[in-house]
Amino acid sequence: MNTYARNTIRAMSGYVPGEQPKDRRYVKLNTNENPYPPSAAVAAALHGFDAARLRLYPDPDACELRNLAAGQAGLTPDWILCGNGSDDLLTIAVRTFVDQGGTLAHTDPSYSLYPVLARLQGANATAVPLDAEFNLPPDAASRAAGATLLLVARPNAPTGNTFPLDSMHTLCRHFSGIVWIDEAYVDFADDDCLAFVRQYPNVVVSRTFSKSYSLAGLRLGLAYAPPALVSEMVKVKDSYNVSMLTQAVGLAALSDREAMRANAARIRATRDRVSGDLAALGFRVLPSQANFIFCQPPVAADVYAAGLRREGILIRYFPGPRTGAFVRITIGTDEEMAQLLAATRRLLGR
Amino acid sequence: MNTYARNTIRAMSGYVPGEQPKDRRYVKLNTNENPYPPSAAVAAALHGFDAARLRLYPDPDACELRNLAAGQAGLTPDWILCGNGSDDLLTIAVRTFVDQGGTLAHTDPSYSLYPVLARLQGANATAVPLDAEFNLPPDAASRAAGATLLLVARPNAPTGNTFPLDSMHTLCRHFSGIVWIDEAYVDFADDDCLAFVRQYPNVVVSRTFSKSYSLAGLRLGLAYAPPALVSEMVKVKDSYNVSMLTQAVGLAALSDREAMRANAARIRATRDRVSGDLAALGFRVLPSQANFIFCQPPVAADVYAAGLRREGILIRYFPGPRTGAFVRITIGTDEEMAQLLAATRRLLGR
Repeated sequence: MNTYARNTIRAMSGYVPGEQPKDRRYVKLNTNENPYPPSAAVAAALHGFDAARLRLYPDPDACELRNLAAGQAGLTPDWILCGNGSDDLLTIAVRTFVDQGGTLAHTDPSYSLYPVLARLQGANATAVPLDAEFNLPPDAASRAAGATLLLVARPNAPTGNTFPLDSMHTLCRHFSGIVWIDEAYVDFADDDCLAFVRQYPNVVVSRTFSKSYSLAGLRLGLAYAPPALVSEMVKVKDSYNVSMLTQAVGLAALSDREAMRANAARIRATRDRVSGDLAALGFRVLPSQANFIFCQPPVAADVYAAGLRREGILIRYFPGPRTGAFVRITIGTDEEMAQLLAATRRLLGR
Repeated sequence: MNTYARNTIRAMSGYVPGEQPKDRRYVKLNTNENPYPPSAAVAAALHGFDAARLRLYPDPDACELRNLAAGQAGLTPDWILCGNGSDDLLTIAVRTFVDQGGTLAHTDPSYSLYPVLARLQGANATAVPLDAEFNLPPDAASRAAGATLLLVARPNAPTGNTFPLDSMHTLCRHFSGIVWIDEAYVDFADDDCLAFVRQYPNVVVSRTFSKSYSLAGLRLGLAYAPPALVSEMVKVKDSYNVSMLTQAVGLAALSDREAMRANAARIRATRDRVSGDLAALGFRVLPSQANFIFCQPPVAADVYAAGLRREGILIRYFPGPRTGAFVRITIGTDEEMAQLLAATRRLLGR
């Protein structure tokens, strides 16, 4: 065996992303992708793009994109950082704010990448457990004390619920390090924390084009933060981390937020209807503010997920004491959800 | 001032990429971009791309691209890692092979990003000085001893020369850590080190689509390495580090290597002719195996570069004891090089 990699890397297994099947066609409700295509402006930007421009480097500062995003948020561009997906932003965050041997905190259960990022940095990860209903505990800040970065997904994944704004204020006020609010699912929710970045010197809000903008394949994320934090993160990012194509397509998508909002509204309506349907079938359904439902089937969750797979439907099962009784079901089209419900009835013998 | 960022980040200034001017049109010979457009297959891939596919995540393993690249190299795909540009690959390398407090070595002068990457990791950088003619010293391995990763650009930047294959063999045999051979400019050179990856367990070769493939805007790099090294680096990369568009366009470009080779041949011919022209004007011109010329003007190099800028021509000047007498001139079209030579004659009063 090679002994070249750092001990921390050799000893770990990498993050395992959700399955992207190539063997057959599934109803794919496993990685929180948007069932609807992106804005027509995206196709227009792509098909009108002059390929000869690709010979040049992209704008390392993604100025056009940051200008537009800043304007929409009532900020100036020095409050914005672009990433190659919000995973890139999270990596930049850890490398900027967490020393090797230091500590990163994250709520638990949450996005399973968070502790992997700590491990990659050679840092410790402190899990701040959510309560029995997956709510933020009132003492979250003190449980995270000692960490220099606290990652909080709001709405949370995989549980889909959100945390009250006042509990987020309490957290940001009492935690001494950076509170990174990962708003990947915010466009499916009733409220957001973007205003926090102007109220606290230690708050970053990140968003992604992967969910509500139907652009998971593009890789684009935005972080909103006080300029003093952005300027440190800029030192850590790869100079040309966002490609010219990603900038052009992202700009087109951001220019047509109405298309995104229309898709998000359809998904929310489907979500709320399917939540009721699953509850009627005996599922315990957590209230969702995201584009997925986290729910406890009336049978063993892993058996249910395996049964759906045999029916050609992929959902996500997360083993473990906190999550092992639940499954996470991405909201697809109404037709896909009808297939899910029909398969569920068959599996339950209803 | 904020005290949130790690000390190592706060204390450093970030890497400064070459200028991407937005204020006016320049003859842009400063960042080693290709003056010719990419293969027509690139435009076809882009314009035929179904934008609706972007709603899904990209293949995290970039299988099609790795299959094709592996086949062309006579390898299997487990020998290939794709990056969001070769800068992403270099970042992955440092995070995989160099501990905080550890040491990275790099030849000097070379790509100025290398010591920045060490700094970001909280590691030390050992510069292995090239000799007076910018050749690899025979004791390079022992000068790099103690480092776990040695970065060598071949052909070298900004000097443009290459190192004899036998000196590279000596280096790889005697250095105990990873030798990372950065072949960004290899398609403009007479030979390469790709075969090394099968001969040594500690050698990685990286390549980029930014130069010879005319795709700097795309962000795509490939690393070739023994599977035992690739599998460690895979743990460190972002899951979806290469976008769906980048994979599709990269696949198209790699499918038409003839277009790339034709452009590279034109650039080499121009390079060799302009090298002679500059020598005739009193420049000391280093032998180049890249798509740029490193040369010492018969006047102060910074004054020459500033003079060209006033003439609307951007080249690159690197201050410092080793490089401060030289300038680096990217090879453009024949017309652009005629403008460079005319401006040079004016500046020199010839």
